[in-house]
Amino acid sequence: MPKFLREIKHPAMSIQSWIAKMTEEEPTCVPVKSFFLSSKNRFVFLTIPADKRLNMTALSRFTGVSRPPFRVVRAEKYEEVLGVKLSTISLHTALDRHVELKVPFQFLFDDSFRAADAKPLIACPSSEGSGSLIYTLSSILEGVTEVDKDFMKKGFFAAVESETVAAPPAAEPSEEISRLDLSMKGTSYSKLGIEVTKEDNFVEWYVEVLKKAELLEYYDVSGCYILRPWGYAIWEIVKDWFDARIKAMGVENCYFPILITKAALQREVNHIDGFAPEVAWVTKSGDCEFAEPIAIRPTSETAMYPTFAKWIRSHRDLPLKLNQWSNVLRWEFSHPTPFIRSREFLWQEGHTAWETAEEATREALEILELYRELYEKMLAVPVVKGRKTDKERFPGADTTWSVEALITQPGRGCQAATSHFLGQNFARMFEIEFENANRERQHVYQNSWGFTTRSIGIMIMTHSDSKGLVLPPRVGKIQIVIVPCGMSTKTTPEEKENLMKFTAAVNAELCAEGVRSHVDSRTNVSVGWKFNHWELKGVPLRLEVGPKELVAQALPVAVRYTGEKEMVQRSDFARNVRLLLDSVHDKMLACARSRNDERTKLVHSWESFNDVLREKGFPLAPHCGGKSCEEYIKAQSAELSRERAAEDKNAPSMGAKSLCVPLDQPSERLPDRCISPVCENTPLSFTLFGRSY
Amino acid sequence: MPKFLREIKHPAMSIQSWIAKMTEEEPTCVPVKSFFLSSKNRFVFLTIPADKRLNMTALSRFTGVSRPPFRVVRAEKYEEVLGVKLSTISLHTALDRHVELKVPFQFLFDDSFRAADAKPLIACPSSEGSGSLIYTLSSILEGVTEVDKDFMKKGFFAAVESETVAAPPAAEPSEEISRLDLSMKGTSYSKLGIEVTKEDNFVEWYVEVLKKAELLEYYDVSGCYILRPWGYAIWEIVKDWFDARIKAMGVENCYFPILITKAALQREVNHIDGFAPEVAWVTKSGDCEFAEPIAIRPTSETAMYPTFAKWIRSHRDLPLKLNQWSNVLRWEFSHPTPFIRSREFLWQEGHTAWETAEEATREALEILELYRELYEKMLAVPVVKGRKTDKERFPGADTTWSVEALITQPGRGCQAATSHFLGQNFARMFEIEFENANRERQHVYQNSWGFTTRSIGIMIMTHSDSKGLVLPPRVGKIQIVIVPCGMSTKTTPEEKENLMKFTAAVNAELCAEGVRSHVDSRTNVSVGWKFNHWELKGVPLRLEVGPKELVAQALPVAVRYTGEKEMVQRSDFARNVRLLLDSVHDKMLACARSRNDERTKLVHSWESFNDVLREKGFPLAPHCGGKSCEEYIKAQSAELSRERAAEDKNAPSMGAKSLCVPLDQPSERLPDRCISPVCENTPLSFTLFGRSY
Ligand SMILES: [Zn+2]
Ligand SMILES: [Zn+2]
Repeated sequence: MPKFLREIKHPAMSIQSWIAKMTEEEPTCVPVKSFFLSSKNRFVFLTIPADKRLNMTALSRFTGVSRPPFRVVRAEKYEEVLGVKLSTISLHTALDRHVELKVPFQFLFDDSFRAADAKPLIACPSSEGSGSLIYTLSSILEGVTEVDKDFMKKGFFAAVESETVAAPPAAEPSEEISRLDLSMKGTSYSKLGIEVTKEDNFVEWYVEVLKKAELLEYYDVSGCYILRPWGYAIWEIVKDWFDARIKAMGVENCYFPILITKAALQREVNHIDGFAPEVAWVTKSGDCEFAEPIAIRPTSETAMYPTFAKWIRSHRDLPLKLNQWSNVLRWEFSHPTPFIRSREFLWQEGHTAWETAEEATREALEILELYRELYEKMLAVPVVKGRKTDKERFPGADTTWSVEALITQPGRGCQAATSHFLGQNFARMFEIEFENANRERQHVYQNSWGFTTRSIGIMIMTHSDSKGLVLPPRVGKIQIVIVPCGMSTKTTPEEKENLMKFTAAVNAELCAEGVRSHVDSRTNVSVGWKFNHWELKGVPLRLEVGPKELVAQALPVAVRYTGEKEMVQRSDFARNVRLLLDSVHDKMLACARSRNDERTKLVHSWESFNDVLREKGFPLAPHCGGKSCEEYIKAQSAELSRERAAEDKNAPSMGAKSLCVPLDQPSERLPDRCISPVCENTPLSFTLFGRSY
Repeated sequence: MPKFLREIKHPAMSIQSWIAKMTEEEPTCVPVKSFFLSSKNRFVFLTIPADKRLNMTALSRFTGVSRPPFRVVRAEKYEEVLGVKLSTISLHTALDRHVELKVPFQFLFDDSFRAADAKPLIACPSSEGSGSLIYTLSSILEGVTEVDKDFMKKGFFAAVESETVAAPPAAEPSEEISRLDLSMKGTSYSKLGIEVTKEDNFVEWYVEVLKKAELLEYYDVSGCYILRPWGYAIWEIVKDWFDARIKAMGVENCYFPILITKAALQREVNHIDGFAPEVAWVTKSGDCEFAEPIAIRPTSETAMYPTFAKWIRSHRDLPLKLNQWSNVLRWEFSHPTPFIRSREFLWQEGHTAWETAEEATREALEILELYRELYEKMLAVPVVKGRKTDKERFPGADTTWSVEALITQPGRGCQAATSHFLGQNFARMFEIEFENANRERQHVYQNSWGFTTRSIGIMIMTHSDSKGLVLPPRVGKIQIVIVPCGMSTKTTPEEKENLMKFTAAVNAELCAEGVRSHVDSRTNVSVGWKFNHWELKGVPLRLEVGPKELVAQALPVAVRYTGEKEMVQRSDFARNVRLLLDSVHDKMLACARSRNDERTKLVHSWESFNDVLREKGFPLAPHCGGKSCEEYIKAQSAELSRERAAEDKNAPSMGAKSLCVPLDQPSERLPDRCISPVCENTPLSFTLFGRSY
């Protein structure tokens, strides 16, 4: 066991401050960070310079372990996995406690330490997290060699990313390196088709669909994604639909700045409590530091409401109904999932102010209904309208309503849109007052409501299949693709020209009827390639036109969703196609609804609650609405899941939380007991529970 | 003169670092900052805690000076104004050099110093800027009392904003507190109409129009503005127009993240040199600092092009034509002007990649033409198409083309949109290569092009008048407002109902014809109030309908732009209104064009160049295109302007820069000499010069 040169006592701090402190204390030292990583039964202890970012792809390549990828062992698991209780994993710990650690592991170092003669000192945290230790690099390497005699030959590789990007503090690396990100970055998708099935590996399937249907591209800031034209077009279509509807309700669009002062952001205390850890802060421009950091909006209540207080004077200024389409940033550290949970996302946020609570509530529920229509009529995704429990309510709201989608394949619920009645909470904090008709001053009642690009992810997860994306017809940028077929070397130029004229004519008919049609007339790819391509991209209908279709009474249209071919009458063709698109939409919605219904089970006992969960279902259970009761349910259901996971590796180990209290309650009488076996409170409603995103 | 307790030597640093340093050196001290402010002949020397933000409104209230508002004396002017050369203004300077300073001034302190017994130490910069000085507060207050015996009675007021927001370092306060911001914040606009004329005070007129037409609202982050629905609607209309046109050209919309890693941002060296000082950096989320700061996009070349390199493999992947509608941040310290120069703005940015330079150039010029149409056909603003000189080119581009608007009232040019041919500069840096038809690898050629919400500001400045906003018909959210008139206490309910039916019918006719019409049927405001209101908001046409119009052959329509009333035939009314809207558009464009033409003068001598400038005109002058020659012209024309400003206080003192080299060159032969009197180079073209935004 190597001896350290010097111990420096200090409190816990961010990794950046720690690096600065170490470099101040020992100017020539290299501060290092270490990761305890595991993949099944393989464990490695990897050390890299603390200011660098771990390159998981390089690790995978170096060790030959790609599936399951290496994951960071979380601090909460140290005792379970390593057999000893530790507050910090550090190089010191690994060398000091090596014999106590129950797992056999391999020491690995970044290449920079092999040739690090110029900087022979290393700084690492002490085991207790109460300070740091300075070692010579040579003593460390000798210490490791004692444990592993081949180490100097096999223990080094280029383990860091060449460009460093933002990383969370070393204490939580596991959060940063999510499974999805890795499975994406570590794999090259050279083949055209989807290589895993939705049933076998939902997560990888989803990522493959996103990539191969060209919906989304990964980006070098973790948790941020590029929306490619094929994905962005879906957003444009639902945006236009929703925008027209809220304008018809008298809502006006506007734009508030993306930056929010610290003072404004912190004014509503429950609100900031909810968002504080996720807020990204701008602290400088160029090299010039700001006196006070400025927040990037996680949502715009606190940007807008100071101005509402200026604009609203009299009851004649009410209602005030504003909306904006914008981007927001929420710096979440839990698993980013493209579309579903990303650090930046696009959304609309409506903000309205009213004279009475009744008017505000009415609007909040009208908007909720509009969200249901958006999902069901546009995206063909059935949703459950409901009210959020106290535990799941928006920070600062009196009531939060939501529409919830059920992703049946993994058995997880997903909040699809929310509509909040804020009551007078923000009005009091931001002093938004008006003089009512009786010349009394009073606070306004407010709503805020929003849906995001998450809607695209929900749609993809709901409908797509193992051949790729399946677009619900109404959100397809292309609803029908026309592929000229049946040409060979024998086809004469005249025949070709006739075919092209025919496809152009059919295309024009379709466009005139308002059908979004496209002719794929490329000559550098085969007909088969085109079929695969448009199938992968999920275009709802494909019309195949060969020489014999020129005179046919009906044309063959392949339906992406069913995989079947329909013969569509040539006369009134465009109208028939429109009807076919509608019927595909209806089928997709009905089919998704029946999947949801199968998985949603009314339960009365704690045992059946957990049975439903185990079957990736959604228990609808009598519940008291209590926050602590809900926490108990989540923790206990997670515990039971973990026990089962020990038997069956594929079983999920997440607990259930409440998705919503459905507005449409079962006709059955509410039982006397809350679903929680230890709860003494009377149930208030049937509440929909489930694992969730 | 009070004695300081202690001197601390240190280099110049940001105000935040300085506060931290002072607090470390003297934990109980209050670091202070001071401002030398003037309004006409009144000077005050104001000291506040360094971590607070000066409240100019409070100063205005306390001193009774509101117009012209107090402005910070800029460091460059210290010698001129104060009579002594100083590198820093500090409390120490003011007390030490009091007798030398030629202006009589009043010492003022923030209220917190009156009752500051608990923290009796003050830290302020030394006069030379080489360090800081620690004083006891009491010695300071005694020192000031020696100079001004009433000081303890009259020298304190609450001078800081209750909420501190981001401020630039103390060295540049003058930049932060721009004239526009102050004139806005310090004034309340209670009256309905515009109180200054466009001719008398252009800057205040502009701000009044923005506020009173409800286009824009100020915000508590300096340089960021709220786009209100009336202003945002203009953006929506031009956006939809442009979006449809680029889609017709095959451009697809997408969305790239707002965050850019430092590594990506810095990859093209000329590009980052151009943007570095303006980039805002996110450095933490919640309390957690990032290992590396992340940039907020000032433009997206560096966010997009690493991915272009992934997507583009073969010549079949080209051209790649993407566009995004997004927000960007450029942290400029020079005078923010709403719409025209703001720190956050909305824009579209097109990014395309091509096989050959010819194709790319052709597209860049097609887009330039589209921008001209956008301005001329939608906003009725005539623009000059041209090429930017080397000095004014986009950082990283081979060629920048632009359309330039001329704001004739203040005599300033304004870059209205740009289209850049980037050549292979970014392709080389980001390794964007493809295999051409001959199977050779080569770099792509690229364009980027954009226009912003600045277009709205240009439109307002061009057309609006001293009665408020004047909307060009095609961008009016409301093109015609119908105001029921002529009702009195004698009007029967039946007559009222008939009138309402009639207005509803006319409104429906107009909407059916595609005219954006609105009936103002409010009963709680008078007809006169409505007339003023819609005039202020710039609605192009106003139809007045009283009982006698129900049977009339023609209806009276007031034209906002001319202030005249036209009688429009009742039969085919909607079509006639559409024609009237078009003719108003044409008139507005023609009138603005003739103003531009009057101010644009072909010049051959340096003297006439400056004469044209003095008359707020735009000299079109033979020029060699040289960068240093252009810098000389700017500096010299500024010098001449300053000399004139000394005679005439209203004369502007800004120098002229090149706006563009117009594509449409005068038919006249180019002279032999460059316009600069000291330049020996041969002129290459007639170049349009002017003062500019
Ligand atoms: Zn309970
Ligand atoms: Zn010259």
